[in-house]
Amino acid sequence: MKVYIKGGYQTKFGELWDNSLEDLIFESFNNTLLETNTNINQIEIIFIGNMLASQMYNQNHLNSLISELFNINIPIIRAEAACASGGMAINQAFTAIKSGQFKNALVIGVEKMTDLSSDIISDYLMSAAGPEERLSGVTFPGLYALITQKYFSDYKITSKELSYISIKNHFHASLNEKSHFPFIINFDDYLKSPTVSSPLSLYDCSPISDGACSIILSVNKYNNSVELVSSQVATDSISLSKRKNICEFESTKIASKKAFEESGIDRKDIDLLEVHDCFTIAEILALEDLGFYKKGEGYISSKLKQSYYYGKLPVNTSGGLKACGHPVGASGVKQVYEIYNQLNGNCKKRQVKNAKVGLSQNIGGTGGTAVINILKK
Amino acid sequence: MKVYIKGGYQTKFGELWDNSLEDLIFESFNNTLLETNTNINQIEIIFIGNMLASQMYNQNHLNSLISELFNINIPIIRAEAACASGGMAINQAFTAIKSGQFKNALVIGVEKMTDLSSDIISDYLMSAAGPEERLSGVTFPGLYALITQKYFSDYKITSKELSYISIKNHFHASLNEKSHFPFIINFDDYLKSPTVSSPLSLYDCSPISDGACSIILSVNKYNNSVELVSSQVATDSISLSKRKNICEFESTKIASKKAFEESGIDRKDIDLLEVHDCFTIAEILALEDLGFYKKGEGYISSKLKQSYYYGKLPVNTSGGLKACGHPVGASGVKQVYEIYNQLNGNCKKRQVKNAKVGLSQNIGGTGGTAVINILKK
Repeated sequence: MKVYIKGGYQTKFGELWDNSLEDLIFESFNNTLLETNTNINQIEIIFIGNMLASQMYNQNHLNSLISELFNINIPIIRAEAACASGGMAINQAFTAIKSGQFKNALVIGVEKMTDLSSDIISDYLMSAAGPEERLSGVTFPGLYALITQKYFSDYKITSKELSYISIKNHFHASLNEKSHFPFIINFDDYLKSPTVSSPLSLYDCSPISDGACSIILSVNKYNNSVELVSSQVATDSISLSKRKNICEFESTKIASKKAFEESGIDRKDIDLLEVHDCFTIAEILALEDLGFYKKGEGYISSKLKQSYYYGKLPVNTSGGLKACGHPVGASGVKQVYEIYNQLNGNCKKRQVKNAKVGLSQNIGGTGGTAVINILKK
Repeated sequence: MKVYIKGGYQTKFGELWDNSLEDLIFESFNNTLLETNTNINQIEIIFIGNMLASQMYNQNHLNSLISELFNINIPIIRAEAACASGGMAINQAFTAIKSGQFKNALVIGVEKMTDLSSDIISDYLMSAAGPEERLSGVTFPGLYALITQKYFSDYKITSKELSYISIKNHFHASLNEKSHFPFIINFDDYLKSPTVSSPLSLYDCSPISDGACSIILSVNKYNNSVELVSSQVATDSISLSKRKNICEFESTKIASKKAFEESGIDRKDIDLLEVHDCFTIAEILALEDLGFYKKGEGYISSKLKQSYYYGKLPVNTSGGLKACGHPVGASGVKQVYEIYNQLNGNCKKRQVKNAKVGLSQNIGGTGGTAVINILKK
C-alpha cells in the first residue's frame, strides 16, 4: 500500500507572543484542511508530535485537548521522542495508513517554548539527555560542544568551517517568509557572536521558537500528492558516554540504510535534504552519516555552495532548525512539508530546480533517536 | 493479518522504594523475554507507555533510554495519553504488526510514582485534565467526585453502593500476589476510611503505585498465544464542562462499539472484563458505558457478586486499579496481561472458569481517551 502526502500548512516560526499552544494547533490544523480542501470528517486518525507541553504547561493529555478543540472523537495519539517527536508522529501515521485501518491521517507537530524563561527551558531541554548527563550539570549546547571539540580534534577543522553551514542556512531563511530569522549573516557577524558553549557560538545554535506544522497522509493520490516512500526509525544510547564514537550517529546510519532499502532509492537519486541542524556540527554529521560526504568533509557542502538551493545537493532550503527556527515538536514535520513544497514547485525564491526526490532526517537528543523520511514526486 | 499476544511479565505493584524507573523497565522487559522464551533479537519494535517521567524525572527520551539499557538500535516509540498510556502503547503495537512491517513487538508499560511527595504528584496528575480545570484548583479525585455527586443525584445511589466495588476489588487483590494491596476490606473499613474528596473516601480511590508490565505481540501463534482481536481508541473533550453528560464517557462507548464491530464479538461472548477503576465510580460508569449494565445499575455487578471471579461476568480479577495498584503507564498493559493469564488458566486462586474472551478498558483523564482491547483464546 502506498502512502501519499496530500498537503499541509506551516505557521510562522518565531517568538509568537500572541499565540498559545492551542492557537498554534488550531492554526496549522485548520489551514491544512483549507489548503488541501479536506473536510474534517475525512480525517480518521491524528498524530501529534510534541516534546515539552508536559513540563511547560503540566499538560499530558494533548490528544484529548485536540478532541475538545475540534469537537471530534476519532483516535488521536501523541508521539514523543524528544526533538524527534515531529518525525516520529509522521512515522506513526505512515504505519497507521500502512496497517489498512485508516485512509487519511493528520499529523500535527507543535511546540510553544517562549512562555518561560530560558533558564527553565534549558533545564527542560536536558530531558532529551541521559540521567548522568543531566546530573553532571552540562547543558544541551554543552553536549554538542563536546561532540564539536572531538570532531575538531579528529578532523582538523575550526569554527571557520562551521560558519559556512550557518551562513548558508541564514541565506535560505532570508528567502522563507515563515522563518524565525529571515536575514542573512556574514562571517564577521558569525565571528562577533557570543560563545554559547565553546567552541559553539550563538550562530552555531538553533533558537528557542514557537510554531506548528501539519500535513495530511492519505492512501489517495491527488494532483499535488507526493509519495512518502519510506519512513524509518532507529535508536541509540541516550548518553554520549556509551557511544563508541561521538562524531557519528549510529541511529542516522541505521535508519537511513533501512530507508534506502525500503524505498529502492539510491543516494544519487536524492535531489534535496532537510537535516537536523540543531547545531551547525549536527548538519555536518548528518551529511556524513547519511553517506553524502566523507567523514571530516561535511562542511565542504556549504563551503563550495553545493548545499545552496541552486547547488548540486541542496540542504535545508527552509533555513533549517538554525534559521527557520526550532519549535521542537514541529521541526520534523516542517522538514517533510518543506520537501513536499519543493517537489511541488511552491518555494518561489528558494525553489530547487527539477526536484523529484527528497530525504529528511530528524534527530532526538544527541542522536538517541533518528527518523528518516523519503519523499518522491 | 492476525495479532497474537505471546506472553508477558508483571512486576510487583506497590511502593517499590528499591526500584528505579530503569529497574522496573529492565525487570519487566527481561522477564518477558525469559517467560516467553524469546531472544531479544526477535523483537523488531518496542512501544513504551509512560505518563509522568517527563515531569518527575525531566526525562523525555525514554525510547533512547531503553536503547541504552538493552544495547539495541531498533525503533522504540513512546506512547503517551495520560492514564491511558499503557493501553495506547498496545494499540500502537497492534497497528505496527497490522502494517506488515514488524513481526514481533514488545510493549512496556511503566510508572515510578513514589519518589516525590504526594502534593507534587497530585499536581502532576492534573496534567491529564483540561487547562481550566487545573487553574480552578480542583484535584483529580475532585473531578471524579463531581462526577459521583451528579451520579448520586441522577440515580439515587449512595456510598454504600460504591463500597461494593471496592470490597470486591480488594477481595480479588487478596488473591493476587502482585497486587499493591493484597488484603480484604469490609464495609466497616470502608465507612471508617477518611474522605478524600466528598463523597469519595480513601477506599474509593486507586493508589499512587510503582510498577511495570510488558507483553509481546506477534504475528506468530504459539501454544499459549491469545489473539488480540481488536484494539480501538476514541477521544472526547478534556474538560468535564464540555460534556453533555458527565455520567457517561462517550469515548468508552465509541471505542467499544468499534471494537465489537471489528472483532465480530458480541457482549454476550465476553467472559471477563478489566476496566479502569481509578475510582469506584469509574468501574460503575465503565460497566454501563460498555453496555453490560443499565445506567444507574452498574453497582449491582458487585452487590450481587456477579463481578467476582466466580460470578457470571468477572470484573477486575487482578484487583483493578483500586487494589492491584495504579502505576499509571503500566495499568493498561497489566489489564491485558491479566486477561491473557485468565484465558490461559494461570490465575490460581482467582481463576475464572472456562474463560475464552476478555475485554479491557483503559481510560485517560476523566474519559478524554478510551482504549478498548478484546482478547480471544
